[in-house]
Amino acid sequence: MAAIGAMPEIGGFRQKSRRSFVTLILTVLTSSQSILIVWSKRAGKYEYSVTTANFLVEALKCALSLVALLRIWRMDGVTDDNRLSTTWDEVKVYPIPAALYLVKNLLQYYIFAYVDAPGYQILKNLNIISTGILYQIILKRKLTEIQWAAFILLCAGCTTAQLNPSSDHVLQAPLQGWVMAIVMALLSGFAGVYTEAIIKKRPSRNINVQNFWLYVFGMIFNAFAIMTQDFDAVMNDGFFHGYSLITVLMILNHALSGIAVSMVMKYADNIVKVYSTSVAMLLTAVVSVFLFGFHLSLAFFLGSTVVSVAIYLHSTSKARR
Amino acid sequence: MAAIGAMPEIGGFRQKSRRSFVTLILTVLTSSQSILIVWSKRAGKYEYSVTTANFLVEALKCALSLVALLRIWRMDGVTDDNRLSTTWDEVKVYPIPAALYLVKNLLQYYIFAYVDAPGYQILKNLNIISTGILYQIILKRKLTEIQWAAFILLCAGCTTAQLNPSSDHVLQAPLQGWVMAIVMALLSGFAGVYTEAIIKKRPSRNINVQNFWLYVFGMIFNAFAIMTQDFDAVMNDGFFHGYSLITVLMILNHALSGIAVSMVMKYADNIVKVYSTSVAMLLTAVVSVFLFGFHLSLAFFLGSTVVSVAIYLHSTSKARR
Repeated sequence: MAAIGAMPEIGGFRQKSRRSFVTLILTVLTSSQSILIVWSKRAGKYEYSVTTANFLVEALKCALSLVALLRIWRMDGVTDDNRLSTTWDEVKVYPIPAALYLVKNLLQYYIFAYVDAPGYQILKNLNIISTGILYQIILKRKLTEIQWAAFILLCAGCTTAQLNPSSDHVLQAPLQGWVMAIVMALLSGFAGVYTEAIIKKRPSRNINVQNFWLYVFGMIFNAFAIMTQDFDAVMNDGFFHGYSLITVLMILNHALSGIAVSMVMKYADNIVKVYSTSVAMLLTAVVSVFLFGFHLSLAFFLGSTVVSVAIYLHSTSKARR
Repeated sequence: MAAIGAMPEIGGFRQKSRRSFVTLILTVLTSSQSILIVWSKRAGKYEYSVTTANFLVEALKCALSLVALLRIWRMDGVTDDNRLSTTWDEVKVYPIPAALYLVKNLLQYYIFAYVDAPGYQILKNLNIISTGILYQIILKRKLTEIQWAAFILLCAGCTTAQLNPSSDHVLQAPLQGWVMAIVMALLSGFAGVYTEAIIKKRPSRNINVQNFWLYVFGMIFNAFAIMTQDFDAVMNDGFFHGYSLITVLMILNHALSGIAVSMVMKYADNIVKVYSTSVAMLLTAVVSVFLFGFHLSLAFFLGSTVVSVAIYLHSTSKARR
């Protein structure tokens, strides 16, 4: 990250290759994230407290940002753009994304009263559409008609690829389930787009400083979540109860993907992030065939075809702009 | 048909509205065709011989073309463009589409040794791709990249809309099944594109004359099919054994849709025909909800979304040409 953070802005090519690089890293990390989750479920080791793990993820991201900053300060010295100290005006917006994610994660506990787990996976694809809408409204950047067509295809393709015999249940989900899914999609889309707005507002500000402040508030909000949800368990069994090698790998992976998401927000945008995580979902399925002997369904092939066409349309439309 | 056939070529608007009209008629007829098939299966009345019905369809189309021609002759007189007599040079290519369809229909009996019926429905969507490829090669008209993307989406969307719990079987179909499906798709695509080439070769020639000769050879080839496949049944039980009101309606519908296909070939093209029949497939499913209490699956909604985007992309791409 330090190398990337320190890379000077010298024209379109380097900017484009850095953009591609962080997108690639995000795709690989997101994909291996899902594989780690499948692996940990298969190993039956999923009894650690999720809130402590989330807290550690934020702490690790904070630490990594500091390490990167130390390297930069040693190389370039401390400047206005890379100093850690900040103003109220700059920092006041940083808690907002962390707060939004917290509310979204709390809602997640309640939606399962209305929707089953495969149904929730399907409904999560609404994130794609909500991100597109909020990206236009908040960042005031217009997607072309072809790019919108591509975005709708991305959503339909991802959902198709995830179809399974029980996904039709989602059509019978009560209205409350749908409303909650839409609210969650809007919260998550808003958090993503708002983070991009914060990071892009000061383009010359070093990304590691911006990340540091984002993650400090992430730590605070996750500490709050530990206290409200898992206080007794942590007090009785200890903070690291149920942790295993896989848990450590998952925390490491989540921290690195979190940083990659920030980098994509800085050097690309939320639209690229959505494409990247969608491709990661397809990659995960293909890798799972080799790792866990999963079978790919016809729906998966059809969904992947539609996602591929969506990526093609998005990229040609951008080239013509 | 007579009114359309006699309509003079007076500029873009009338041509475009005629194009839309024949496309609409084809969509409605194709859709009601499938509904008649479901109805006849439900009523348990499907024991008539298919070859005799096919022969009657060709005979009826021939008769309808003649009726249309009689009206035109009475109004405009007999001209070089609407006279029924023909030259060897004009008529020699007309048997080819009929022969291709015959071979394709014969193959249909053998493919079920390798693929089940829902799998065959899925594989039939390969027609869309084969039509696109042969359209480019034979008619030498180029589809733009966006139009190709739309065509791939049309194929993926139609297949998605038809997904059912047993469609994954098609992935386990033996290689022979796939090869036969591809050969059948190529035969059917070739027959369609070749028909368009024949009809478009003489733009001023009246469509009813062109249809008459196409259908005469259709009658001859279907008479051949009766003799090779159903000769004994027809001799023992009679030509009209097992016919019912639904059978008569189906023959009437097939004849009218056949004429509509020719009209679409004359005034639009095979690409429009493929879109029209795809939309008809979706329409059938929606109408079946009301008529037969069918349920629409999530896959159907996703597939319909993808098909809608495909139609949008095809139409915007055409507008920009």
